[in-house]
Amino acid sequence: MRGLRVAELAAEAGVSTSLIYYHFTDRAGILHRTLEFISDRAGRYTAEREPVGEDDTDPRTDLEQILLLELQDTPEVRENSTAWGELRASAVFDPELREDLAKATHTWVHEIAELLGRAHPMGTAPAHAASAERLTALLEGLSVRWLSGSLPLEHARHLLLGAIDTELRRP
Amino acid sequence: MRGLRVAELAAEAGVSTSLIYYHFTDRAGILHRTLEFISDRAGRYTAEREPVGEDDTDPRTDLEQILLLELQDTPEVRENSTAWGELRASAVFDPELREDLAKATHTWVHEIAELLGRAHPMGTAPAHAASAERLTALLEGLSVRWLSGSLPLEHARHLLLGAIDTELRRP
Repeated sequence: MRGLRVAELAAEAGVSTSLIYYHFTDRAGILHRTLEFISDRAGRYTAEREPVGEDDTDPRTDLEQILLLELQDTPEVRENSTAWGELRASAVFDPELREDLAKATHTWVHEIAELLGRAHPMGTAPAHAASAERLTALLEGLSVRWLSGSLPLEHARHLLLGAIDTELRRP
Repeated sequence: MRGLRVAELAAEAGVSTSLIYYHFTDRAGILHRTLEFISDRAGRYTAEREPVGEDDTDPRTDLEQILLLELQDTPEVRENSTAWGELRASAVFDPELREDLAKATHTWVHEIAELLGRAHPMGTAPAHAASAERLTALLEGLSVRWLSGSLPLEHARHLLLGAIDTELRRP
């Protein structure tokens, strides 16, 4: 994404650059639409997850499942995580990307905080928000370690489950 | 780093490309030396940290300080974190980088696990290793959120302190 050139994208897609500009307006439009695409797809694989038998209404299992869905070796999760990591890393150098990314991060944190509220009803809303920020930031950190070959996937999943356990023990 | 061209690097440094090749052999050599440079510098600012009065031998304070040193708005920490994030993100696409990065990650995890061992002597070595992996992966996640404008620095520091607290409470 860093060196994204519209001409290369058009060549890869086998269309003209003017068709790309017609649909996406500019480079920022392409990146904006990429973020929408991966967010929609993550929402889809999250919504389509299998109910887990008797536990399908247990909020803790639900929280674990939703977070673990992002650490799976399937083409769509790999592609989603890679694209998310690229948007994140690119935003360090490209302020144009930051607002969309901060919004998407906020939406994600908010969803996880709600699940934490159900799994741990004795906690306070600010404590759930902080736990959700930590769990999602940890997931981003684990995900890029996995994709960059520093951490086996199964171990990343184990570490994430440990973090959920610790967050749910907080007083 | 993704689009690093030796010719641009030479122009930026005001030297010839042959001098760059003489010192670094190839592109992989430049990236290898970059990782060494940021690791040495992080080791230096970690070693030079101020003792904190009476608490200077308290292992928990020491652990907190060492991790918080990576979340500071100073030019050298910003540059180090940006370069580390770039190496991490580049390794997703460039297998050549992975071995060095996995080694540097392992060294870092090992150092933090040792500090956890001193701060929490009742825990087991595998538990300290897992906590160290989580804390360092969380720190990477928080750092890139900060650098990409999704998280204010003070809040990132607060979340990290909360995670240290939670890891040290583990049974």
